[in-house]
Amino acid sequence: MEEVAVIGAGQSQFSRNCGVSIRELCFEAFKEAMQGLDITTKDIDASITCSAPEYDKQRTPSGLISEYLGLTPSPAFYVESVCSGSTTGLRVAYSLIKAGLNKTVAVIGFQKMSEISSRDAAERMGRGGDIIWEAPFGITMPAGYAMYAQAHIDTYGTTEEQLAKIRVKNASYGAKNPKANYRKELTLQECVTSEPVARPLKKFDCCANADGASCVILARADIAKRVTKIPIWVIGLGSATDTMTMSGRKSLTGLRCAQEAARQAYEMAGVKPQDIDVAEVHDCFTIAELMAYEDLGFATAGQGTRLVDEKQTYIGGKIPVNVDGGLLSKGHPIGATGGSQIRTLVRQLRGEATEAQVKDPEIALSHNIGGVGQYANVTILRR
Amino acid sequence: MEEVAVIGAGQSQFSRNCGVSIRELCFEAFKEAMQGLDITTKDIDASITCSAPEYDKQRTPSGLISEYLGLTPSPAFYVESVCSGSTTGLRVAYSLIKAGLNKTVAVIGFQKMSEISSRDAAERMGRGGDIIWEAPFGITMPAGYAMYAQAHIDTYGTTEEQLAKIRVKNASYGAKNPKANYRKELTLQECVTSEPVARPLKKFDCCANADGASCVILARADIAKRVTKIPIWVIGLGSATDTMTMSGRKSLTGLRCAQEAARQAYEMAGVKPQDIDVAEVHDCFTIAELMAYEDLGFATAGQGTRLVDEKQTYIGGKIPVNVDGGLLSKGHPIGATGGSQIRTLVRQLRGEATEAQVKDPEIALSHNIGGVGQYANVTILRR
Repeated sequence: MEEVAVIGAGQSQFSRNCGVSIRELCFEAFKEAMQGLDITTKDIDASITCSAPEYDKQRTPSGLISEYLGLTPSPAFYVESVCSGSTTGLRVAYSLIKAGLNKTVAVIGFQKMSEISSRDAAERMGRGGDIIWEAPFGITMPAGYAMYAQAHIDTYGTTEEQLAKIRVKNASYGAKNPKANYRKELTLQECVTSEPVARPLKKFDCCANADGASCVILARADIAKRVTKIPIWVIGLGSATDTMTMSGRKSLTGLRCAQEAARQAYEMAGVKPQDIDVAEVHDCFTIAELMAYEDLGFATAGQGTRLVDEKQTYIGGKIPVNVDGGLLSKGHPIGATGGSQIRTLVRQLRGEATEAQVKDPEIALSHNIGGVGQYANVTILRR
Repeated sequence: MEEVAVIGAGQSQFSRNCGVSIRELCFEAFKEAMQGLDITTKDIDASITCSAPEYDKQRTPSGLISEYLGLTPSPAFYVESVCSGSTTGLRVAYSLIKAGLNKTVAVIGFQKMSEISSRDAAERMGRGGDIIWEAPFGITMPAGYAMYAQAHIDTYGTTEEQLAKIRVKNASYGAKNPKANYRKELTLQECVTSEPVARPLKKFDCCANADGASCVILARADIAKRVTKIPIWVIGLGSATDTMTMSGRKSLTGLRCAQEAARQAYEMAGVKPQDIDVAEVHDCFTIAELMAYEDLGFATAGQGTRLVDEKQTYIGGKIPVNVDGGLLSKGHPIGATGGSQIRTLVRQLRGEATEAQVKDPEIALSHNIGGVGQYANVTILRR
């Protein structure tokens, strides 16, 4: 069967309030993804749009954005799995191409969270969980991840300082990423003394809402080889779910869906955790990045903190993670986040990330989580 | 490459107010789809949920429904293209299987429109169009389709009586469908004298909101042959879009997206319009069914009314259409509609539709439209 490659990836500036319409926001990401490709919009024969619909005034934005990008009458539709939507979109685009239904597919993720108030945003995010049995009792995102953090502390003796070190690392890379919303380095002291949000998580343990868009363009092997100098091959895809309620989970020290998605992706790619040269993980909270180290097999359960203390997830360490600053620095425009991870990995694999480049990476991994651990996608790319 | 078949299809009762939660509503459709299959929920390795999100209180229902059906931790996500969502879901399920990522995929479409008021529903439906340039000026669904009807009348001399005859046909079949919301035959007189909604469309030219769910289960060829006596093969898939604004369309006497989707599906299937033995078309309004005859090539442009006058779309005619009553009789629970069409065609192809069976059909076609003609999917099935 034909292989599938990422031929282009881009993102808009991530910001608190983009001040433009969603179509213009998406165009910014599309424009970067198309840069340097020997194709026109006529060659893109399908598009997939990903966002979390509760933040959009426009319903079913797929057709609107597709038309603005000049892709009509090619098929356009909407794919969503909350915060992991745009890597689900990538999975679908890969499938459409492999199935022979399409040849070149654009996956456009976006979110314009500034359209509603922060208070409304927090409430609506809670509805991503179970609206009958948990959301009414206050399981918003910070509350949910605070329970994971407390469980990790109780079970493994993890400290709040160790969590803060993850933010310090990501802030150091975020400061170098011109497309991140927060580009300020942070000290350990600033992180551990920041105001509480949901104990033990403090302000700097949490990512923030943002406006932003991402775009990943996939193509069939023959086209990929013709239209770009460095195709980035999709070699592993894993996807899984867990219970909607947190109370239904077997464990709160890791995400079962991420463990299962990683297992599938490693198996499909025929690689092991130690083969990964650079990773983007879903650090919506510092604890989420720590759990990702363990769920992805970069460390055994409870030992992720050793990677933190030894600085092994910095560039030069065993497994550099979130060298674009992660969600913690970039901000988290829900539907755009997975695509932004893929863009970072494509730039790393092509050696284009001059601001913070890992040395000669060959294999890269994205870990993208939806909800409070309900959905996980793991994607493995190869240069 | 492996072929893909529909192995099971089901739907809930369609009703004005189902009185149950969305998970229970979806279970009703899933249960029928699973009937007679030699598989358990463990064998379903992915699920896709389709609805129009503006009517749901629950956000991202995919995980919730997947868990309720016993499918966790298999991947679950959301696919949408307004009223054509569940046939887009079918397209994606087909691709996942062809690509080798999954083997057996359930596509669950639903809508519980009773969760919001009819007035809110009409306003939100308008947002499926362009919210900046058209929706604010009142382009709700009936207003949009009224413009199509008037254009057809002006261009081809189509009469309101001819439109009403379509409703009379569909009502006659709806009366025999125990899962339809409206099971009452209608006379031509009742239709043409019903109250105006948006001239020239009257009450009985319009379908109504409904609660309902549908489920279509697809599987890889080897599994399909093992677990069901009569696999129904997916042989043609077409999908296309048109401009978001109606003012951007080249013509208002047909849907360009439907014409293009039909072209793709016929080409992929290697069949012609005259090879279709039974069809389900998206009759959200009587004019929509008339345009479908022409867009699908059952009649040339402007000649669809001949099929109507000659009763060629009744059972026994050249091309029986909507022999389950169509959206006009069943009601239109947005995300469930495409899957309900597929269920009807599967029952027809298997010879199980004892209440209104076309004689020995071999090839069947579904035509499923999203928005005011922004999205179209055409699916061709073979026994």
